[in-house]
Amino acid sequence: MVIVGVSKGRGWGGSHYLETFKEYEYSGPVYPVNPKYEGEEIQGFKVYGSISSLPDNPPIDLGIVAVPAKVTPQVIEELGQKGVFFAHIFSSGYSELGEEGKLLEQQLLEKAKENYIRILGPNCMGIYNPKGRIGFTHRLPIVSGPVAFVSQSGGNAHRHAFAGIIYGYNFSKIVSLGNQIDLDLLDFLNYFRSDPDTKVITMYVENLKKGGNEFVQILKETTKEKPVIIWKGGKLEAGHNAVKSHTGGLAGNIKLWKSMARQTGVILVNNFKELTEMIQTTLILKIPKTLGTAIITGGGGPAVELTDECEAYGLKVPKITEKAQKKIMEFIPQVNSNLSNPLEFGANGGHVNMIKVMKILDEEPHLSSIMITNNPEWYASAKLDMEVVVKSIANTISQDSDKNIISIYNSSRARKETIDMINEFYAKTRENGIMVYDSPGAAAKCIYRLWNYGNYLRARN
Amino acid sequence: MVIVGVSKGRGWGGSHYLETFKEYEYSGPVYPVNPKYEGEEIQGFKVYGSISSLPDNPPIDLGIVAVPAKVTPQVIEELGQKGVFFAHIFSSGYSELGEEGKLLEQQLLEKAKENYIRILGPNCMGIYNPKGRIGFTHRLPIVSGPVAFVSQSGGNAHRHAFAGIIYGYNFSKIVSLGNQIDLDLLDFLNYFRSDPDTKVITMYVENLKKGGNEFVQILKETTKEKPVIIWKGGKLEAGHNAVKSHTGGLAGNIKLWKSMARQTGVILVNNFKELTEMIQTTLILKIPKTLGTAIITGGGGPAVELTDECEAYGLKVPKITEKAQKKIMEFIPQVNSNLSNPLEFGANGGHVNMIKVMKILDEEPHLSSIMITNNPEWYASAKLDMEVVVKSIANTISQDSDKNIISIYNSSRARKETIDMINEFYAKTRENGIMVYDSPGAAAKCIYRLWNYGNYLRARN
Repeated sequence: MVIVGVSKGRGWGGSHYLETFKEYEYSGPVYPVNPKYEGEEIQGFKVYGSISSLPDNPPIDLGIVAVPAKVTPQVIEELGQKGVFFAHIFSSGYSELGEEGKLLEQQLLEKAKENYIRILGPNCMGIYNPKGRIGFTHRLPIVSGPVAFVSQSGGNAHRHAFAGIIYGYNFSKIVSLGNQIDLDLLDFLNYFRSDPDTKVITMYVENLKKGGNEFVQILKETTKEKPVIIWKGGKLEAGHNAVKSHTGGLAGNIKLWKSMARQTGVILVNNFKELTEMIQTTLILKIPKTLGTAIITGGGGPAVELTDECEAYGLKVPKITEKAQKKIMEFIPQVNSNLSNPLEFGANGGHVNMIKVMKILDEEPHLSSIMITNNPEWYASAKLDMEVVVKSIANTISQDSDKNIISIYNSSRARKETIDMINEFYAKTRENGIMVYDSPGAAAKCIYRLWNYGNYLRARN
Repeated sequence: MVIVGVSKGRGWGGSHYLETFKEYEYSGPVYPVNPKYEGEEIQGFKVYGSISSLPDNPPIDLGIVAVPAKVTPQVIEELGQKGVFFAHIFSSGYSELGEEGKLLEQQLLEKAKENYIRILGPNCMGIYNPKGRIGFTHRLPIVSGPVAFVSQSGGNAHRHAFAGIIYGYNFSKIVSLGNQIDLDLLDFLNYFRSDPDTKVITMYVENLKKGGNEFVQILKETTKEKPVIIWKGGKLEAGHNAVKSHTGGLAGNIKLWKSMARQTGVILVNNFKELTEMIQTTLILKIPKTLGTAIITGGGGPAVELTDECEAYGLKVPKITEKAQKKIMEFIPQVNSNLSNPLEFGANGGHVNMIKVMKILDEEPHLSSIMITNNPEWYASAKLDMEVVVKSIANTISQDSDKNIISIYNSSRARKETIDMINEFYAKTRENGIMVYDSPGAAAKCIYRLWNYGNYLRARN
């Protein structure tokens, strides 16, 4: 590991990366380079005056370049000559600034090719790899997980890195792509396709620099093995302009992306929230065989809302079978109840009855999702053990059930006293295979998309 | 005030209402009636054996009836003969159960007409009127506010009553309609239209029992004076079935409701969350004259997302004028910045620069909304005073500005330590006329709808 361009102050740039290697206790040697501070120590690391003077053993596996843009071609040449195969160029000031910057990128790429070194960036935050103890900023979780994220925005890479833990997932790697003069979206897609640590590949993409057909081919091969979720940024007119200003590229037409998704089984999402929800969905839920959804809730008004929102995003809320209705009637009176679907039992809608009904629904052939509403704050005020309550819900479906349990819960979280308990509810539901959404609309979108992915896979086979 | 049908135990029904009159310190006399407990005391109130034996002075203004459905026609007759003009029938077991119940409703209505008494319900939770110290359940805020809510679902009435305070608004009155055999949606619309305490009228409606044309006429008159927000429940197929089971009515076609909204200026929303956001919007924001929105945020990726979401819901993100761009260039370098719209300043995007840019945008004629992103957790960690920070943002637009400041902020609220500070941020922004949304999509929907309402008003004049 070599970091070219460090200074003594704290802050952004090379010194920032140096701090992170220290923070994450990176196991290999770390060599800061700056002729100005040759022989001195920065943050406990000995500073080298040049790349050529660095030790040869062990070989250096990554160079992080944070020097003024104009100097970078020279630095890349030196790194290549030292035998470094891979460099992340943090520096900005290239094609995002216009013609002069484009020329500089060409020079950089030529030097890289001549010296057999691959480049990530320039103008990017680089890599977060918790297993390898590499992170692009402070205080990231050093826990590895099943999600890979490739981002054409450093801001979104940063935001996602911190959001994962809130939503209950961790990352195998996050890559901030930058200007993609060498390594690009396709390279990382290929890499994550065969990365055993990655179970779901996710991307923030504004535009495809090259290789549309190749991208489609790789996607087709990849979605057979693991889900690929793409958040496409820059959809309409002003969004296109924003992309142009951001990465200097032309945002692809969203219609083309939709058509590409149909061909490849890619799951498209529209924004950051949908991305996080879709990731959780692929990690927690089984691929639903049907759109059929049973809704159990308290009160006629909420039952109508849940039904409306499910239908608005493509789910079906079909009547349950007469057989199931008869079984339910054995313990719930018809008066003030709705026993067809949405199911709603008025004063008979307590937890015990809900559990009994869910067990009956597990046998319904035309349903794939059982949607309930939960309020952990009630459980807490009733002094119920969260683990026991959640397990009682999770166990309503058999081990080999093809159904998912979906819970709708949204707290304002306005009172401090409830936060621990709410966090426990989320943790326990995830552990037990129950996916909690903050609204029925969010749930319906995700379940529909997962069903659609399943549909694609079934049609391919 | 008379409550017919009380028992000694705590719980639902008449005793429940008795408890609430005590809890809210209702100022008038309260007379529980039950021949079984004649002369005894329940919760400190003397129980009467019959309606006819109640004191004549002061006159009784409201009867709450919570006896078995079959007895209610007789009770209504007795209340009418005692000179009571208004009764809320809590009891259920009427048309929602079928033919027999429908007959009972007819009897009830005949008795009411014969005895000059108006009925709310049956089968409803009744009224929440904080000014009058009346509430349909425990622990409601006894603070009066500008929002009226008429609900065809007791569950949604209950939920909204508690949600208001979380979202920073209070209610003039909430009415749970029930089966509407006498007083209906139209009556309450008319009432709230001329209620000086009500600034915005909101409704949860599943179906219109009668008077479609009359409804349209009253709405047209009402929207001239105050906004009317309607959440229509039961939109598609299964939603219609859910409505049928809930209130026994046929859900009107959503297309008809949309056309009605176009004719009347009613603001339609799709779900509970949209309802609460739209209410806040009408209370906090000025009606925007244009769809033009300026976006200021940190980072290119977030700028693209905000732009995409604004455009997805109908807002425009036009370039700012060259004049304004030149003013901004005086203190923000063009390098690594986007100075057209969305505005994004890379490393130059601190609070002070944001404030300066907002002041320049206040002069832009083609913009009505200035959308920023805030993170109160940063303010707190930087030890900034929340009041000072929020005021510095609010004061960027002049007193007579026609623009709104919109803030996008969404916290996971996963850490207890941050809750007080986040709550303070919401309180201060509301006080200072800044509306905070949890996503740009939520913001865009609300601003578009408010603009559309303004458009309707302008076209009428």
